[in-house]
Amino acid sequence: MQHIKPPEQKRLAYVIGPYKEPIARVRPGETFLVSTLDAFENKIDSPKVDLLKVLTLPYVNPCTGPIYVEGAEPGDSLAVTVERIEIPRQYAVSCIIPEFGGLCGTVFTRVLNDPLPQRVLIHQLTKDGLIHDPALKIPPIPVEPFYGTIGTAPTVEAISTLSPGFHGGNMDAADVCPGNTIYLPVNVPGAHLYIGDGHAAQGDAEVCGVAAEVPTTGTLTVRLIKSKPVRTPRIENGEFLMSVGSARPMEDAARIAFHDLVTWLASDYGFERMSAYQLCSQVARVRVANMVDILYSVVAKFPKRYLPQK
Amino acid sequence: MQHIKPPEQKRLAYVIGPYKEPIARVRPGETFLVSTLDAFENKIDSPKVDLLKVLTLPYVNPCTGPIYVEGAEPGDSLAVTVERIEIPRQYAVSCIIPEFGGLCGTVFTRVLNDPLPQRVLIHQLTKDGLIHDPALKIPPIPVEPFYGTIGTAPTVEAISTLSPGFHGGNMDAADVCPGNTIYLPVNVPGAHLYIGDGHAAQGDAEVCGVAAEVPTTGTLTVRLIKSKPVRTPRIENGEFLMSVGSARPMEDAARIAFHDLVTWLASDYGFERMSAYQLCSQVARVRVANMVDILYSVVAKFPKRYLPQK
Amino acid sequence: MQHIKPPEQKRLAYVIGPYKEPIARVRPGETFLVSTLDAFENKIDSPKVDLLKVLTLPYVNPCTGPIYVEGAEPGDSLAVTVERIEIPRQYAVSCIIPEFGGLCGTVFTRVLNDPLPQRVLIHQLTKDGLIHDPALKIPPIPVEPFYGTIGTAPTVEAISTLSPGFHGGNMDAADVCPGNTIYLPVNVPGAHLYIGDGHAAQGDAEVCGVAAEVPTTGTLTVRLIKSKPVRTPRIENGEFLMSVGSARPMEDAARIAFHDLVTWLASDYGFERMSAYQLCSQVARVRVANMVDILYSVVAKFPKRYLPQK
Amino acid sequence: MQHIKPPEQKRLAYVIGPYKEPIARVRPGETFLVSTLDAFENKIDSPKVDLLKVLTLPYVNPCTGPIYVEGAEPGDSLAVTVERIEIPRQYAVSCIIPEFGGLCGTVFTRVLNDPLPQRVLIHQLTKDGLIHDPALKIPPIPVEPFYGTIGTAPTVEAISTLSPGFHGGNMDAADVCPGNTIYLPVNVPGAHLYIGDGHAAQGDAEVCGVAAEVPTTGTLTVRLIKSKPVRTPRIENGEFLMSVGSARPMEDAARIAFHDLVTWLASDYGFERMSAYQLCSQVARVRVANMVDILYSVVAKFPKRYLPQK
Repeated sequence: MQHIKPPEQKRLAYVIGPYKEPIARVRPGETFLVSTLDAFENKIDSPKVDLLKVLTLPYVNPCTGPIYVEGAEPGDSLAVTVERIEIPRQYAVSCIIPEFGGLCGTVFTRVLNDPLPQRVLIHQLTKDGLIHDPALKIPPIPVEPFYGTIGTAPTVEAISTLSPGFHGGNMDAADVCPGNTIYLPVNVPGAHLYIGDGHAAQGDAEVCGVAAEVPTTGTLTVRLIKSKPVRTPRIENGEFLMSVGSARPMEDAARIAFHDLVTWLASDYGFERMSAYQLCSQVARVRVANMVDILYSVVAKFPKRYLPQK
Repeated sequence: MQHIKPPEQKRLAYVIGPYKEPIARVRPGETFLVSTLDAFENKIDSPKVDLLKVLTLPYVNPCTGPIYVEGAEPGDSLAVTVERIEIPRQYAVSCIIPEFGGLCGTVFTRVLNDPLPQRVLIHQLTKDGLIHDPALKIPPIPVEPFYGTIGTAPTVEAISTLSPGFHGGNMDAADVCPGNTIYLPVNVPGAHLYIGDGHAAQGDAEVCGVAAEVPTTGTLTVRLIKSKPVRTPRIENGEFLMSVGSARPMEDAARIAFHDLVTWLASDYGFERMSAYQLCSQVARVRVANMVDILYSVVAKFPKRYLPQK
Repeated sequence: MQHIKPPEQKRLAYVIGPYKEPIARVRPGETFLVSTLDAFENKIDSPKVDLLKVLTLPYVNPCTGPIYVEGAEPGDSLAVTVERIEIPRQYAVSCIIPEFGGLCGTVFTRVLNDPLPQRVLIHQLTKDGLIHDPALKIPPIPVEPFYGTIGTAPTVEAISTLSPGFHGGNMDAADVCPGNTIYLPVNVPGAHLYIGDGHAAQGDAEVCGVAAEVPTTGTLTVRLIKSKPVRTPRIENGEFLMSVGSARPMEDAARIAFHDLVTWLASDYGFERMSAYQLCSQVARVRVANMVDILYSVVAKFPKRYLPQK
Repeated sequence: MQHIKPPEQKRLAYVIGPYKEPIARVRPGETFLVSTLDAFENKIDSPKVDLLKVLTLPYVNPCTGPIYVEGAEPGDSLAVTVERIEIPRQYAVSCIIPEFGGLCGTVFTRVLNDPLPQRVLIHQLTKDGLIHDPALKIPPIPVEPFYGTIGTAPTVEAISTLSPGFHGGNMDAADVCPGNTIYLPVNVPGAHLYIGDGHAAQGDAEVCGVAAEVPTTGTLTVRLIKSKPVRTPRIENGEFLMSVGSARPMEDAARIAFHDLVTWLASDYGFERMSAYQLCSQVARVRVANMVDILYSVVAKFPKRYLPQK
């Protein structure tokens, strides 16, 4: 099985765009291994690390890619199935970054208040789960790994790996996990797929801005869906159809997600649009994936048990 | 057991405030029955009803109340446990209202586009669940009743029963359900509790603006917590501590909810605030309760299994 | 001329609503004097005052009212012309309030950062203008008084005098000044007009949350426009038609303002709506009135020189 | 004088980024001519043009650039003085684009309402001004040309020319006009300056999404300010210091603008930050530059007459 590894440091990807040479090529239907660094480029290994030295924008959240998908053409979509995610390290890292997060002033929500102090935790990964902080007497947290970042190149833009968007990117949606398939747009020949930002655990909304950050080695299968574009990322498993909206303010993220979900139910499952809209109001589920990134991400979910019986 | 019923129509409550005479009084610790009309004042009984005639603002979402709680004084809080909710009708109602909802122009998000068409469905409530629309071949939806609206009077404001806020109100949070306890502020002597807007089923976010609307007869127990105010509604059950934030834009609702949750963990459970914040980023759950009301409501949830072991 | 003064303290108005007995009555067409306290109830007279003791919510921004307008019925609108505003005091007050303002965490935009320090300035009002701070070597600021708060009672709500809305209220729009006419909705018999929050000077957006706060004695003329409701406040002078939108996020305030302006141009001046929309995109002016209150207020302005020539 | 013209079509710039070869080089202090196409690539010359055929994303708003500024290094800033803007065409173009604008559903504020109809106007430019629509009997609109788009390359991102941001870009701020100097960050060697989107006239907020669009030939002088970075674009003329914030929601754009303005007053003019904040609340002016683009832009302005006298 092909194993795609992060390139040497100076060739790491900090944007998702069409300008970088592919580091590997896969065929539609191919199952392959891909390794990723953590969002801090594996540089944090102690609570004593000075975040302001490690996090030198824009060189944060390096992704592995671009991966060229043979035969992918603009107007197609990719279906990326996450088969498995391994964590090749005994610890995860989380931190509080002074001007980043959901409950503090940021570069966008600018305030004159003094910034929060920085704070780093190294979380041991044990067979019982993640140890958040030995000083707290709390049970281990189950390790449920997923990719915070997965996306395909836009046509001409190169988007920071810190941002989610219509191209996928840094959605921080825990639904990008083993067993699920992610549908992404193809905007350039070969699609140019990027993957990174492994999380061993994350709460909804990722409120302090950081999850339990880990490097990963994952097993993925990429399929190509010809001439069926997606306008925003979609995710599917046995239980749910899911659409991901990324925008600010957060209600716009929710609007994009629900609008796409209603559109999907109409185009693929025979619902009249107003009927799908009214039904979602009774059965949909919503995950706030992040409330901290350059755009917020919201996942609107339709339980497949309410799809019309054929 | 005392049974508190909606008053005659001209005395129905369309605001939650301190200006209306109590319709009943309860003692702390008392368990009582309370009946509520549906959000449309039980006026919709057919898909043919013209919504523009039935929904004459501000006379929408009538609540039962105010209920005077003996001994409640400003600075206290109420703990309202929902024991049980019965639905005394064989159907629920939902609809699409032309300038109201999550995916359309509204009186706030003003657009020049033509409004959506109105659409009314009468949902039969069967022993197998709610029949959303017989024309769709989909399974019944489980009936999981809750109160869309529960709140206490502010000091001097009278807030539309269509709005949620720091006083509770129209949060449309499915966590206001049997088995859960809701903590609300006491701002005026007697607290002046209002209840209404029963829902037989509702998706997260209540995206089209309307759930499966029903009248209810519920069994509640009200306790009084002296001199311990809550700044925004809280909800608790065996599994979660929950704080509800209501605001626009939606990220502010989430900020209020998480800020209160962190504050709660610090004040009652010994967490240092930054530590609680960082832990929430790994284990919290979030419900988007509504993305349609005068303010949006978001519920931030902390799993009690991660409370420090004593 | 009738002179309407603030009532004794315990009868001051801290909400704009239908529940308070009128303190005076005026006839349509009547010109009268009205006096108002400053937003801090005239309690701050020194930089040493402790804001946390003076500002005890909800008892802030007392308004003079309600004033009953004879003959006003729901569905009418009031046209209030501000003839003149006098400042019966030799100083104005401004301050920085720890959790209130445009560049800090607030009760809505909740953050974990430490709050800003409080800061009070007493500004002498001289014949040359307002002395912001003698320690700064800057010229006097012209005194251009206006009312921060003017509004009429909603039908059943009682809205904090700190909030603007469809009823007017705390818009903090410098266009509510001598020479201008403000159109407000009539929702209850007698309209119940409230006035307060005099400002001797204010920057657009009122960014720190406070202007140069003063008591006032103003001369107003109220006219009644029968059976022509306004949906949001409008302002007019020789130069501009102005619509005020109040909402969060700020773009919704701007949407309300522009939607109403387009509607006004269509209903009263013969424009086709799409044509008015496209013209506004070339000639409109916008004032951000406040970015600090419970709702933000934006004024969209159409220069009357571009009204069709008859 | 050097005259920099748009390159052939296939080399036009639709993103502002570091990946394109410079089309010209200028020296610090050099005054040069630059020509730009209009935002529609000069393709609309009749009201009959089908917008959906002309506007094929992402190939909209082509900019002239990148222009390499000799000696510019990351950490410097550019000071671009607009000396003059000529319009080499007898007409301007404006339109209503179905899912773009301030008062309609868009790709972000997604709605299920039917989209607005498209509408194109060709505006003659006469010696008396711009003729918006001969069918309306209104006076000509003064021609006050400015650049809607001016920006410098980010370090690794390539940002759509439709978006404003910390790099400048599509701010649609009428203050980017003759007589004013725009300060922009330098993130890459040579700065990589892009210019485009000439407007013959524009209302505040550019509410329908389009101004009076024109090609231009402008005269610019670029100076280099070594080792003094700007964090967001600034503009200066004899009357105002101006900071531009671009974000969603709009209050975040205003926060960025005011935060930078306060920071500027503190770093360059000796103000204590809290003092500058409190003064801005009395004397600042605000322009809503756009409420339609990928990010909204707000300009916060400090009148230089209130700078401390030396």
